[in-house]
Amino acid sequence: MPYAARLNNVETSAIRELFKLLGKPGIISFAGGFPDAALFDVQGMREAVNKALDEEPGPALQYGASEGYDPLRMQLAQFMAATGIEVKHDGLIVTTGSQQALDLIGKTMIDPGDKVIVEGPTFLATIQCFRLYGADLVSAPVDADGVRVDELERLIEEHKPKLVYLIPTFGNPSGATLSLARRKRVLELAVKHNVLVVEDNPYGDLYFGKAPPPSLLALSSEVPGSRDLIAYCGSLSKVLSPGLRVGWMVAQPELMARCVMCKQFNDAATSTLAQATAAQYLKAGRMPQALDKVRKVYAERADAMGQALRRELGDAVEFTAPQGGLFIWARLTGAGGKIADAGEFAKRAIEQGVAFVPGAPFFAKDADKSTFRLSFATVGIDRILDGVARLGKAL
Amino acid sequence: MPYAARLNNVETSAIRELFKLLGKPGIISFAGGFPDAALFDVQGMREAVNKALDEEPGPALQYGASEGYDPLRMQLAQFMAATGIEVKHDGLIVTTGSQQALDLIGKTMIDPGDKVIVEGPTFLATIQCFRLYGADLVSAPVDADGVRVDELERLIEEHKPKLVYLIPTFGNPSGATLSLARRKRVLELAVKHNVLVVEDNPYGDLYFGKAPPPSLLALSSEVPGSRDLIAYCGSLSKVLSPGLRVGWMVAQPELMARCVMCKQFNDAATSTLAQATAAQYLKAGRMPQALDKVRKVYAERADAMGQALRRELGDAVEFTAPQGGLFIWARLTGAGGKIADAGEFAKRAIEQGVAFVPGAPFFAKDADKSTFRLSFATVGIDRILDGVARLGKAL
Repeated sequence: MPYAARLNNVETSAIRELFKLLGKPGIISFAGGFPDAALFDVQGMREAVNKALDEEPGPALQYGASEGYDPLRMQLAQFMAATGIEVKHDGLIVTTGSQQALDLIGKTMIDPGDKVIVEGPTFLATIQCFRLYGADLVSAPVDADGVRVDELERLIEEHKPKLVYLIPTFGNPSGATLSLARRKRVLELAVKHNVLVVEDNPYGDLYFGKAPPPSLLALSSEVPGSRDLIAYCGSLSKVLSPGLRVGWMVAQPELMARCVMCKQFNDAATSTLAQATAAQYLKAGRMPQALDKVRKVYAERADAMGQALRRELGDAVEFTAPQGGLFIWARLTGAGGKIADAGEFAKRAIEQGVAFVPGAPFFAKDADKSTFRLSFATVGIDRILDGVARLGKAL
Repeated sequence: MPYAARLNNVETSAIRELFKLLGKPGIISFAGGFPDAALFDVQGMREAVNKALDEEPGPALQYGASEGYDPLRMQLAQFMAATGIEVKHDGLIVTTGSQQALDLIGKTMIDPGDKVIVEGPTFLATIQCFRLYGADLVSAPVDADGVRVDELERLIEEHKPKLVYLIPTFGNPSGATLSLARRKRVLELAVKHNVLVVEDNPYGDLYFGKAPPPSLLALSSEVPGSRDLIAYCGSLSKVLSPGLRVGWMVAQPELMARCVMCKQFNDAATSTLAQATAAQYLKAGRMPQALDKVRKVYAERADAMGQALRRELGDAVEFTAPQGGLFIWARLTGAGGKIADAGEFAKRAIEQGVAFVPGAPFFAKDADKSTFRLSFATVGIDRILDGVARLGKAL
């Protein structure tokens, strides 16, 4: 069959390989990119969906507006207000997970051949999503303080990108958080070079100790002209339930209108049952308590994994302990003559019964093959200790 | 902002105009394209979602496979078996409404400039969806027996299309149903010209009297080589609830694999809460009863509207009484010196407090401006009679 040429832009084997790793039974998996289902507030969800069906059965089961269900938009606006973002309910649109926001941004913004700057490493599905629209991705280096803004400016000047895509807070896979000073600099660069910055923020609420710096969107009030250059993507997936597929986007009205137009032809609307449920859940006021719980559990697991890595793998790996999110991003140093190729390390780890994701596929260009990503989110502490011990053996 | 060029392919004003018509308070609306929320089986849905959260809270709230939730795929395979379609659970993928299936087909198949044959008239959102991928649409004429297969063959030979898109059963907006003989001919043409036929079938279960002819997919067993050339799109939106956003697609494995790959970057997965709910609903066996109810109500409304139209508008309109679905598609004849422009008629109707959709936007090319679409689905019989009387006055 004569498939569309855009499919040639996407390398799927890397992804297939990742999923194959997960198939082996009994394996301890640090490979996932998802929250722990055991932490879901099932009772809260049950109450929310029943309330939705009792109070608003029509809207909850009927088609909804492509821009989102207003009661949810109001709740999301309030939810964001708690993180310093001022937005009215019609200043955001609901998307089918934040993945759809990325797709809509790709569809509305990217012409084949357009340059797009992403972090190196960045979210795998963003790489593929943008490439399907023909984006030519440019990779900006990241350190423990997030994307390097000096390099970012150089790349913006060199490539004149259509947009810059960042996960500034507890990045996937980097775990890095962009410093306050760098955030301000990113906003200044957006204005100076008149370039759209997509801020993907699914993990911002999952902090372990003190809250991270305000989002780019929240800080945009301090940098004149920057607010209209931010497209902010939020999600309930990591803090409440990925199964709802409820994300949202805040951007300037013209861009949002075009995204809504495209959404009409993507899926017409996000599940109104899911939207009404999410609205009822947020309205019930259970979110702060639910967040406290997942923050505490993930913090303990992150700490256990970090300590075990230092103990079991020593100077053969280096990483920065994450302050939030789901991931530890690590690099094999080769110290003591140990292997430095994470793909090879992953194969040996599987033999020892533990899975993780090698870092190479997360780079749009110039992959650092010594890197790998470990998720601490879905595994209890005993199994984290067991798994990291096996990693030690594998190394 | 420098938006992507593909947005220039889409004319949104026609759609905006449609929605404006619906805003006036107190209006009797025949404009909608949705089922009647008053007929939703709310109790059945409540039981289904609670059962899903009781029995499978993890899967119902976690990320799911992009190809769909297996228990739902199994139920959908059974649901289709009742209409003569033989398919295994992994022979279908779940989509976020059938709208997403159309988007995935567009993304995987259509290169800019590719010809695509659609019915004239056809579903508005398909026109826009495919144009966003750069399709050059060709319009094949429709009569009371569906698309004219002689014209279809001529157009296939002339344009060598990438695909042919049909709504063979109770078409939107045409209300027409492709005859059995023409169905077989379409399958033969698919094989003869090696062209993909997309069969969009959201209305097939909404028949009023006897069941319509089998779907193209069901009939493909009678035409060697045709099955792999059908991409069938199903939906629970019109028969159960649009708010679930649960549709599905059956196609040959290679095409489905590519659609699944694209779906990963569209929305990762369809809401697992919605999928688990739909699976439990189907499993509970309530669908036959729910279908009986909506068929009966829609049949009465269709009949009432048809009779009223003949009584109130006489020979100034012509239409074929639909045998299922949600719509009457009519044409102004201009008889007796009455207006023959449906756009002008729509304006006068709004002044009389009744709304419907003029037919022109449903044509990808060569719009017939004398046509218009009336939905009988969401209005009670008293208001149908009142509304059609007002149409009489407006004419």
